[in-house]
Amino acid sequence: MLFRQFFDPKLAQYAYLVGCQQTGEAVIIDPERDIDRYVEAAESEGLRIVAVAETHIHADFLSGAREFAHQYGTRTYLSDEGGDEWASDWARTEEYDVTFLKDGDSFHIGGIEIQALHTPGHTPEHISFVLIDRGGGASTPIGVATGDFVFVGDLGRPDLLEQAAGMHGVQEPSARQLFASLPRFTELQDYVQVWPAHGAGSTCGKDLGAVPQTTVGYEKLYNASLSVADQGEDAFVDAILAGQPEPQTYFARMKRDNNKGVPILGQLPSPRRLTVAELQRRVDSGEALFLDTRLDRSGFMAKHIPGALYAPMNRAFNTAVGSLVEDETQAIVLIIEESAVEEAVRDLVRIGYDNIVGFVTPETLTRYFDKGGKAGKVEEVGFDAVAEARLRSDVEVVDVRFASEYAGAHIPGALSASYTRLPSLAPERLPKDRTLLVHCGTGARAAAATAFLVREGYDVRFVNGSFDAYKEDGEIETGSFKGEPQEPAAV
Amino acid sequence: MLFRQFFDPKLAQYAYLVGCQQTGEAVIIDPERDIDRYVEAAESEGLRIVAVAETHIHADFLSGAREFAHQYGTRTYLSDEGGDEWASDWARTEEYDVTFLKDGDSFHIGGIEIQALHTPGHTPEHISFVLIDRGGGASTPIGVATGDFVFVGDLGRPDLLEQAAGMHGVQEPSARQLFASLPRFTELQDYVQVWPAHGAGSTCGKDLGAVPQTTVGYEKLYNASLSVADQGEDAFVDAILAGQPEPQTYFARMKRDNNKGVPILGQLPSPRRLTVAELQRRVDSGEALFLDTRLDRSGFMAKHIPGALYAPMNRAFNTAVGSLVEDETQAIVLIIEESAVEEAVRDLVRIGYDNIVGFVTPETLTRYFDKGGKAGKVEEVGFDAVAEARLRSDVEVVDVRFASEYAGAHIPGALSASYTRLPSLAPERLPKDRTLLVHCGTGARAAAATAFLVREGYDVRFVNGSFDAYKEDGEIETGSFKGEPQEPAAV
Amino acid sequence: MLFRQFFDPKLAQYAYLVGCQQTGEAVIIDPERDIDRYVEAAESEGLRIVAVAETHIHADFLSGAREFAHQYGTRTYLSDEGGDEWASDWARTEEYDVTFLKDGDSFHIGGIEIQALHTPGHTPEHISFVLIDRGGGASTPIGVATGDFVFVGDLGRPDLLEQAAGMHGVQEPSARQLFASLPRFTELQDYVQVWPAHGAGSTCGKDLGAVPQTTVGYEKLYNASLSVADQGEDAFVDAILAGQPEPQTYFARMKRDNNKGVPILGQLPSPRRLTVAELQRRVDSGEALFLDTRLDRSGFMAKHIPGALYAPMNRAFNTAVGSLVEDETQAIVLIIEESAVEEAVRDLVRIGYDNIVGFVTPETLTRYFDKGGKAGKVEEVGFDAVAEARLRSDVEVVDVRFASEYAGAHIPGALSASYTRLPSLAPERLPKDRTLLVHCGTGARAAAATAFLVREGYDVRFVNGSFDAYKEDGEIETGSFKGEPQEPAAV
Amino acid sequence: MLFRQFFDPKLAQYAYLVGCQQTGEAVIIDPERDIDRYVEAAESEGLRIVAVAETHIHADFLSGAREFAHQYGTRTYLSDEGGDEWASDWARTEEYDVTFLKDGDSFHIGGIEIQALHTPGHTPEHISFVLIDRGGGASTPIGVATGDFVFVGDLGRPDLLEQAAGMHGVQEPSARQLFASLPRFTELQDYVQVWPAHGAGSTCGKDLGAVPQTTVGYEKLYNASLSVADQGEDAFVDAILAGQPEPQTYFARMKRDNNKGVPILGQLPSPRRLTVAELQRRVDSGEALFLDTRLDRSGFMAKHIPGALYAPMNRAFNTAVGSLVEDETQAIVLIIEESAVEEAVRDLVRIGYDNIVGFVTPETLTRYFDKGGKAGKVEEVGFDAVAEARLRSDVEVVDVRFASEYAGAHIPGALSASYTRLPSLAPERLPKDRTLLVHCGTGARAAAATAFLVREGYDVRFVNGSFDAYKEDGEIETGSFKGEPQEPAAV
Repeated sequence: MLFRQFFDPKLAQYAYLVGCQQTGEAVIIDPERDIDRYVEAAESEGLRIVAVAETHIHADFLSGAREFAHQYGTRTYLSDEGGDEWASDWARTEEYDVTFLKDGDSFHIGGIEIQALHTPGHTPEHISFVLIDRGGGASTPIGVATGDFVFVGDLGRPDLLEQAAGMHGVQEPSARQLFASLPRFTELQDYVQVWPAHGAGSTCGKDLGAVPQTTVGYEKLYNASLSVADQGEDAFVDAILAGQPEPQTYFARMKRDNNKGVPILGQLPSPRRLTVAELQRRVDSGEALFLDTRLDRSGFMAKHIPGALYAPMNRAFNTAVGSLVEDETQAIVLIIEESAVEEAVRDLVRIGYDNIVGFVTPETLTRYFDKGGKAGKVEEVGFDAVAEARLRSDVEVVDVRFASEYAGAHIPGALSASYTRLPSLAPERLPKDRTLLVHCGTGARAAAATAFLVREGYDVRFVNGSFDAYKEDGEIETGSFKGEPQEPAAV
Repeated sequence: MLFRQFFDPKLAQYAYLVGCQQTGEAVIIDPERDIDRYVEAAESEGLRIVAVAETHIHADFLSGAREFAHQYGTRTYLSDEGGDEWASDWARTEEYDVTFLKDGDSFHIGGIEIQALHTPGHTPEHISFVLIDRGGGASTPIGVATGDFVFVGDLGRPDLLEQAAGMHGVQEPSARQLFASLPRFTELQDYVQVWPAHGAGSTCGKDLGAVPQTTVGYEKLYNASLSVADQGEDAFVDAILAGQPEPQTYFARMKRDNNKGVPILGQLPSPRRLTVAELQRRVDSGEALFLDTRLDRSGFMAKHIPGALYAPMNRAFNTAVGSLVEDETQAIVLIIEESAVEEAVRDLVRIGYDNIVGFVTPETLTRYFDKGGKAGKVEEVGFDAVAEARLRSDVEVVDVRFASEYAGAHIPGALSASYTRLPSLAPERLPKDRTLLVHCGTGARAAAATAFLVREGYDVRFVNGSFDAYKEDGEIETGSFKGEPQEPAAV
Repeated sequence: MLFRQFFDPKLAQYAYLVGCQQTGEAVIIDPERDIDRYVEAAESEGLRIVAVAETHIHADFLSGAREFAHQYGTRTYLSDEGGDEWASDWARTEEYDVTFLKDGDSFHIGGIEIQALHTPGHTPEHISFVLIDRGGGASTPIGVATGDFVFVGDLGRPDLLEQAAGMHGVQEPSARQLFASLPRFTELQDYVQVWPAHGAGSTCGKDLGAVPQTTVGYEKLYNASLSVADQGEDAFVDAILAGQPEPQTYFARMKRDNNKGVPILGQLPSPRRLTVAELQRRVDSGEALFLDTRLDRSGFMAKHIPGALYAPMNRAFNTAVGSLVEDETQAIVLIIEESAVEEAVRDLVRIGYDNIVGFVTPETLTRYFDKGGKAGKVEEVGFDAVAEARLRSDVEVVDVRFASEYAGAHIPGALSASYTRLPSLAPERLPKDRTLLVHCGTGARAAAATAFLVREGYDVRFVNGSFDAYKEDGEIETGSFKGEPQEPAAV
Repeated sequence: MLFRQFFDPKLAQYAYLVGCQQTGEAVIIDPERDIDRYVEAAESEGLRIVAVAETHIHADFLSGAREFAHQYGTRTYLSDEGGDEWASDWARTEEYDVTFLKDGDSFHIGGIEIQALHTPGHTPEHISFVLIDRGGGASTPIGVATGDFVFVGDLGRPDLLEQAAGMHGVQEPSARQLFASLPRFTELQDYVQVWPAHGAGSTCGKDLGAVPQTTVGYEKLYNASLSVADQGEDAFVDAILAGQPEPQTYFARMKRDNNKGVPILGQLPSPRRLTVAELQRRVDSGEALFLDTRLDRSGFMAKHIPGALYAPMNRAFNTAVGSLVEDETQAIVLIIEESAVEEAVRDLVRIGYDNIVGFVTPETLTRYFDKGGKAGKVEEVGFDAVAEARLRSDVEVVDVRFASEYAGAHIPGALSASYTRLPSLAPERLPKDRTLLVHCGTGARAAAATAFLVREGYDVRFVNGSFDAYKEDGEIETGSFKGEPQEPAAV
């Protein structure tokens, strides 16, 4: 048996390649949408991917299952549990080779047996895959791919459908389902390896560890969420629903597309490098969105294309784009080093932005400005300016960290508006007739938020600096934001 | 004034960027079809290309004039001389900003005056551009862009329309037109710089120097073809028509497209890197042509995808492809290092092959064969085998050098079939019931020819070695090939 | 806790980065010598590597421990068990911050406790590291880094010191030590993760799985070597010593250097790209060894620099070089694509070849031969030629697969000479006055062996083809090679 | 004959490759120090460089002549004119194959004759090379390599030795020598091509055109400096010495090294990519100079390593470094994208900075600052701040454009200190007890000057903006700077 874990550090997502070397066949579990790299990895091991298996309908990225089916005719294994609402409609209506699995069903990849366990909670249809290496002489499981059911140190959140997909009233029943699913995990042998779909950095759970995999026995001892179950169902439900980070608003779109059918990609978009003249035409036409990915946020603030959004090429890239660009069909022009284009394109198509029409290198951008191209500029200040601002009536301090962080500690009087929900929160909470001092914990998230707010017509100053340092001397208070108490994400 | 020469070493083609720094405007003369690099070069000098000027309707590459007009709305300057047959139909029927120039007309780019001289011969509509740097204080020419009229050490061949475009009976009248055009050149001041459209390696002339530019006075003294004019028109006509290399057969297609309208490229094709699985599907479907560009011809002969053509990434790449791939809409898969893909794509679109659907790296190819992918193999022999073969009745020696080279010296009994004309010559001259020993001067051209003939069903051995070395000892004879005396290219 | 596994697919080697996010500190376990990538990986996670820990004195690669100590002043944790012979002399004589660990000793990296278990067998000083994530709230182990003690599905071989380092009479006592160490593993909790130092492809064990990690409980059930222990010590000793592949001869050198002190690298060698002229001078001087890394073995056989060794850039690259280049100070010139140079350099320094003075691209090589550079050529034949050859007295068939493969099935009369031991076996077993037909299972290993034998003055034909295919029809016999019964590796 | 011009856009320098295809030999005229690219270019044309010829002892870059002689044993042709002071000492004292040429001497490269013309003025030993393509059938020159004697539209400045090399009292005699040399040029045939050693952007002449080459006849008509000669020697001398830009101060060092012997390079420096930890150690040790090459000057001002110099990777890169880094043995760490490292290294070694010990990518720099690395910051202001500042006594406006630009138009009261001479001018002219507002024409040169002055302990504000725009409204005066009337460069 060959086993390989694929990690997408930006989405904190794990896919798994499992192959039987005797037959040369392999299955890929929970692939992302740009599938070429899985195929190449398999081929470099002498394997052919003959099957795709999905633990559930993902909310945080677009699945590669339909792409595999379409491009390679790969067999697809999907859940047949959980009811009609999330039934992978595409796979039921199109002519692909799909097998729907009920709890207890199994299939084989060469000498490897793969059994489906129905483990609802995160979603109703969620299944886990138990692997038995029969070809290697085993009769008990080597591991279990748990999807968003059990993570390293945590459980998959049962509130996501309500928080992200707008399904009201489902989070408590889901939490109770999750409670009921726990024995499916704890009854496995202690030595069974646990392969989750997410790692540290994902908002699909609360407290995910930075160890890429774990074991059943270890989680039974040390998984914090699992431990609460010992206190009974109600205590478990209360605990699991408390303090979850706000999911990104684009999760609803991911859910829908993964259910209805992710558009076929075929080939990665290959945006062209724009000349200064082409950039000028793009600016003039106003049709494309400029997405500036430079790491240097001060450089962005000092000089950027007016109207550009800011999403530096770090781990929050997808989160920033997915949260702040509401229309996934929007034509996008990247500001980016040529060597990073492929990475950015992969990141974008994984959350459904396929219309990437061009890119501009920092060098061309400099040339553009030097030739007189119009530049936007945002004033950058430090936390000392925030302190002063509190005394003035024409200024508001805006805190774009998660509501949970805000609740933990914030500047008195600051408005809360998580940057992952700005498109909906800004019109509700932020005034256009005052100057906004936008801060986060370090400046990273505030920079993306600043660009968004400027584009929306707000008068903004960008606060670049460490909230932790400020906290040491500055006045601080705790508690949730009161501006919109009815908003679930701010609970 | 800013002046920059662009050289395409494979097509031996020169384009010229001429700009006025006072106004920031520039003109590009005789651009190829992938125009982005001209725009970027201009921008890096702070210039904007506002005009394209063409000396004539090119036969050896696709012009970038229509691409500029379409993408940038660039003004176009074309010849209004030479009659209806080659009148740049596209420019007369479409809504572009085109100015047709008669002999003596001029236009300005900032402070630079550009005058059209009608200089027919190579083609009827051919014009040259005389440049006067008035903004730099000059009142006499600094240089002349001579297109295919005067080269360094040679003149543009007047037989190309007949030889390549199939227009019978025009080469002698063209030669006489060329004779009549010569004074337009010789009357210019000696000190005028001469900027031709081709350099060493092009088949648009006979004996082009490897010095990129020259002067009027120097050519008047030392240009071989020009010197013959002193002996009178008839002697000139005889001389200029003698010994020209066979033009590539794809020249007719270039002429037609440049006249009717080169398809808009928009963006360079971006072929995808194929996995082994995708390669297998491509092989199975049989729809795409595999174009193997590895430099190592022995490696190709030892193992290649059955049916693949061979065109190594050297200076003859376009010539080989243009000569041997008759259908320019053919879907093409390249065998190539990833780092060379862009170069190959540019080469291909310059001669009209836009349908480049994928590429396979040598590493993937090896993996494919290691996984059992079917491989073609051609036996490789040396010139010693050629000597032996002459005694056997079931073998023919095939010489794929130019007919002019064959005429200079060849192996007794060898069949002549220039590799640039193989698609038409092979059925006429080469037997399918005997083994062909295919040679050229070094093995380079014979390798491309071998792959073509194998694909066409011939029984071929590839001769890898030096004809010059063979000549020292082997039996040699001279004279044209007698197999097809009526064939003009073999004259 | 942050955990990251590093895999070197050529050496099938795993290193481990374990960090405490609370303090930002990390330890690296069993690093290779080019340490920059560990440092960068740690930094990208916001960690600083403050410690290096080694499970044992490695035989198959050069350790990066001394490099860390020298460059960064990193603390080093080494075994204090096993006696004087392998006591990490460098660490005892130089002024580095080294802690020697006895069985039961432990140290901390932030909140992570790391305990040393003395687990001799593979080597006398071997220790394993048990990790407890106390900062994460655990009081029992999360995992154990087992070095070359327990692999996935196998145990570390106890015969390596004898087979590779020339220490006679130690393999049986070592096997008994290994037997005695087993309870240290089996007494751990079932759920403990097992992180070995090698995976599939390494010759440090017999039957290593292609699953990168395992658990104590699973190995207790399914590890083949471990299971034999149930039959008692003697049965275990017999089984563990049987059928091990011949270790590479360079293992002795690795052992010595890791013990005495690996030379400080400082910076990766940066070989220069040679021009044709420089290549010619290198050829003329005869001082450098040409190492041809082209994947295409037929291309190599058809044309190569006379005297060049052949080691294609695949997973056997280090093995081929380490086995066939005896002098690690030898000046080396690579034949390689520029894009692969860094990878090759890393591979080479990991086994001690630091004197990489230049590289030649395939394109330059072609140019060199085209300019008349002298080329070597080896005739390539198929297995049909092998069948014929058996009838002739002037030809010997040479099988360069492992002795264990030879013992399983070989061509009657074939000489056995594993390509990993050719420098010593060739003079003993292979005649210079006959033609050698050199084969392996596919052609891959035979190609490297062929180049070596040609360089040594043998008359060689290269057999390119599948031994498995041959076996279906051809005559086959089994049993060990009789030529040198006293040679331990052939047992 | 093959002819190829090499352009270094940063030094505006031309080298020439001239080869005879019949013999395969070539000469390189005025090569820079990183000679590999000339060798590769020649080889790609099938040529071997057998000779180096130098027009004079260069002041603006290090010659590659000694490198060729040392690495390849290439023959060297140098001037034997001009006296002992600049006699190429290295070539007279070392065992290389050197031929010293007197006026009228000639040598051959295959069929090409190359004659030396003594053409002093720019320097006493200066020679030009007249080329006759005898192999191509010519008996008169095809071109002349004029070095720094005649440029396109200008003449080489005769004041450089005095201005840059500190030789007092030589500029007028040199100007008279130049006058005497003019007939050597004007007596050549009008049609002769003129190949100068510099183009637009060089400070070796005043008004160099952006046309890469010219002809004798055209220059006789339109070369401004040459035209003045018609008014007699004295008028010529006055005119040629007026208004020359200040040469860089490093020119003196270039002269000296080119005369005494440029250090052998052997191989291009290959600086290592620094990790954050290594960067921190470099910062702590204080030994290396950080050279920040980011194009975004606002980004630099916002955040940079304290003490870093700023030299963006544009055409002024060498000028900035050569002018502001006085010690050429200084250990340098670059802040640069990895893809630009080779270009920067070539630029630096061409002016003698070989000690390039490492580089830091912008991404690593960001990580460094995010981890708490100390950052420098300079306040950036616009020209409006300059206008205000003039009213304040604690502020000085510093104009770092050339003295000639200052003389043409400057802000009243501004101090003049050309950025190319800051190391010597700053201590003389700029006060440490006031705030300096540093401006140039656009911000580009002021940025480099700002970083230098901050490093030297001045209190600086960086003025980013267009002086031309300011001039339209702001108060302006003309005339030379009065602060240091005795300083020749300010004349």
